[in-house]
Amino acid sequence: MKDHFHQQSKQEVVLVNLDDIIIAREKMKGIVHTTPLDYSKTFSRLSHNEVYLKLENLQKTGSFKVRGSYNKLTSLSKDELKNGVVAASAGNHAQGVAYSSQMLGVPCKIVMPKGAPLSKIEATKQYGAEVILEGAVFDDALAYALQLKDQLKTTFIHAFDDEAIITGQGTVGLEILEQLPEVEAIICPIGGGGLIAGVAMAVKEKNPHVSVYGVQTVACPSMKESILANKPVIVQSSPTMADGIAVKKPGEKNFEIVQKYVDDIYCVDEMEIARTMLMLLERNKLLVEGSGATSLSSLLFEKVKLKEKKVVAILSGGNVDMSFISRIIERGMVEAGRYADFTITLKDKPGELQRVLSTITDLDANVQSVNLHRMGKNIYPGFAQIEISIETKNHEHIEQLYHALLEKSYNVQMGQY
Amino acid sequence: MKDHFHQQSKQEVVLVNLDDIIIAREKMKGIVHTTPLDYSKTFSRLSHNEVYLKLENLQKTGSFKVRGSYNKLTSLSKDELKNGVVAASAGNHAQGVAYSSQMLGVPCKIVMPKGAPLSKIEATKQYGAEVILEGAVFDDALAYALQLKDQLKTTFIHAFDDEAIITGQGTVGLEILEQLPEVEAIICPIGGGGLIAGVAMAVKEKNPHVSVYGVQTVACPSMKESILANKPVIVQSSPTMADGIAVKKPGEKNFEIVQKYVDDIYCVDEMEIARTMLMLLERNKLLVEGSGATSLSSLLFEKVKLKEKKVVAILSGGNVDMSFISRIIERGMVEAGRYADFTITLKDKPGELQRVLSTITDLDANVQSVNLHRMGKNIYPGFAQIEISIETKNHEHIEQLYHALLEKSYNVQMGQY
Repeated sequence: MKDHFHQQSKQEVVLVNLDDIIIAREKMKGIVHTTPLDYSKTFSRLSHNEVYLKLENLQKTGSFKVRGSYNKLTSLSKDELKNGVVAASAGNHAQGVAYSSQMLGVPCKIVMPKGAPLSKIEATKQYGAEVILEGAVFDDALAYALQLKDQLKTTFIHAFDDEAIITGQGTVGLEILEQLPEVEAIICPIGGGGLIAGVAMAVKEKNPHVSVYGVQTVACPSMKESILANKPVIVQSSPTMADGIAVKKPGEKNFEIVQKYVDDIYCVDEMEIARTMLMLLERNKLLVEGSGATSLSSLLFEKVKLKEKKVVAILSGGNVDMSFISRIIERGMVEAGRYADFTITLKDKPGELQRVLSTITDLDANVQSVNLHRMGKNIYPGFAQIEISIETKNHEHIEQLYHALLEKSYNVQMGQY
Repeated sequence: MKDHFHQQSKQEVVLVNLDDIIIAREKMKGIVHTTPLDYSKTFSRLSHNEVYLKLENLQKTGSFKVRGSYNKLTSLSKDELKNGVVAASAGNHAQGVAYSSQMLGVPCKIVMPKGAPLSKIEATKQYGAEVILEGAVFDDALAYALQLKDQLKTTFIHAFDDEAIITGQGTVGLEILEQLPEVEAIICPIGGGGLIAGVAMAVKEKNPHVSVYGVQTVACPSMKESILANKPVIVQSSPTMADGIAVKKPGEKNFEIVQKYVDDIYCVDEMEIARTMLMLLERNKLLVEGSGATSLSSLLFEKVKLKEKKVVAILSGGNVDMSFISRIIERGMVEAGRYADFTITLKDKPGELQRVLSTITDLDANVQSVNLHRMGKNIYPGFAQIEISIETKNHEHIEQLYHALLEKSYNVQMGQY
């Protein structure tokens, strides 16, 4: 870490090395995709950089996680493989371990908390893993997985705090250097720190002039806080769309590597993540999960201060629950001023609703839904209330609508999201 | 056309030729992407073929249309270009013409009907075109565009019935042959017939052993009906998610080429389109519009009867209105048995709702929304009614839930979609 963090000590224990990452890359050929590195004209223009997107959302199992787990499994002995593996995860690690196990013909058990999304359970089962639902939250599932490991003498596969996992994730860095040798900066989401540790190690050892930046959410800035504290610390996290990187405490090994190699860490908020996801879907036709969008988000919302550089944003995954995606789109549209909600109080007489609607039509806005009530706590006799959702062009358009509606009605309130 | 269609006459008027398509490809380098041709393991397994996806949804402007319009514009004289161009479209053609005009510095007017989605209007404006909203439906906008053409001496750019347009679209075919020389069959959506005419011409002239199949929707099978009638005919169309290919009458030129080169045409229905879009989004992280998904849909739902072939499905575009995408996801989930709606009548006494919810929990289903009423036309005194939406695993799971709920309640009705 440069500048921003006051570093107390500098450990030189090399846990992961470039040679192993190169070997890992060879081992995973044919199993793991070399994902595209796509130049984006739109995002280059918006951020005043030359922006490339590393599409790990198009990776096998929908995220980079499969790289680490495959490398971990191939590092086990024959006896260990025979006894199988166990992991705890309700997310991308589950699918990564399950797929890697299937490829190697290794028995695999994945423990998930009982509330895990059906789609994740089904996806993990499709890769041939046995899914065990245990406990109410992740920590319970983890405890049970560790118990199984002891009982059944299987190998526990940690999601990030493991040299072989970090080594596997580092292959993303090698690919970027090959695909864009002149890269100047790489931006990478951080959860437990597996991906960024591997990438930073691979990249900095090959070319120390390339900057590597990490991104977390305001909701769960555990690596950022840990670097400031000079040791891994636990943070209180709040709910976030980027659940894939909502890790309350970074890995010990990951922390050491990040401390040594990563240039800086920035945080993005929920609004920024939602808008970035929406832009990726609408303009690039790509589904990227919340955590995967944080890297690009940090660039678009100018957390990472770069100008006219060749920058790679790693879009680390694309596993978004389908029943959740509508909410994200709506959220993104709200944030972008593409959607507004008004509660309008009118006199209860014929033609009033029509008058409101014509006001909206005159301003080229598009009505999405209408609810009209005559009964309610704040509706007085002789009045009616309309709740109306409108598709709009931008925030300015919403303001225009608001003022036009004010002129035609008794009272207008804009919805709070 | 082979076998299936009784062909009365065979015209040999060659309107488009391979050499021109090769020249078109050279001209558009740097302006139009060579889109990826991605092997899909999942769809290969599901359809018992070796399936490749031609990702024209990742094309500039979000669809293949830009190829045709750019080629058309470069075929105009300097004087014609100076006077600008006009087109009528509420969809991908609009963005294609606008972008091509911007690249060539040509004044461009796009006429859209007044109900056109805001997102399409904004996207077209972003490419520097003047958007004119005129008329209630597409035909009115078209009439106005033709009127403008005469008044302003500009050039009208047809969306498909034009040699230069067809020639431009044909570059997709050349790319496929380069990317997968051993291709055995190509499946292509058909609206007016611009894409398939160009692709079939390019492919068949280079390698007549490659089969070329077209796909339309049950809602608007105009090319299929025209081939059966041996001349372009108008069909009555019904609403469809594949609005990009809802063209009521194919182009004259397109018809001739399709009649000569295309092996067969199949139709897919709305359910099949929705499920395919959902699969592409969920498994491949790709946003593909309804019309673009029809090609893959015809393979997955076995309209095109192919086994163990190397097949390319052209995913022709990815422009889905964001406010519409939630509906498509929901529709796809319903069709896949991933979502169900029940209306349950219970006795109006404490604990009844809880009993229903525990039944659902016991079957590992996830409640999305609940509405409880005590008043309503079909609710008798002493009873209450619950409308409940549930995330489910598959159709079998829904049946299990239905029977479990029947046992615990007075009456259960499954929602109709």
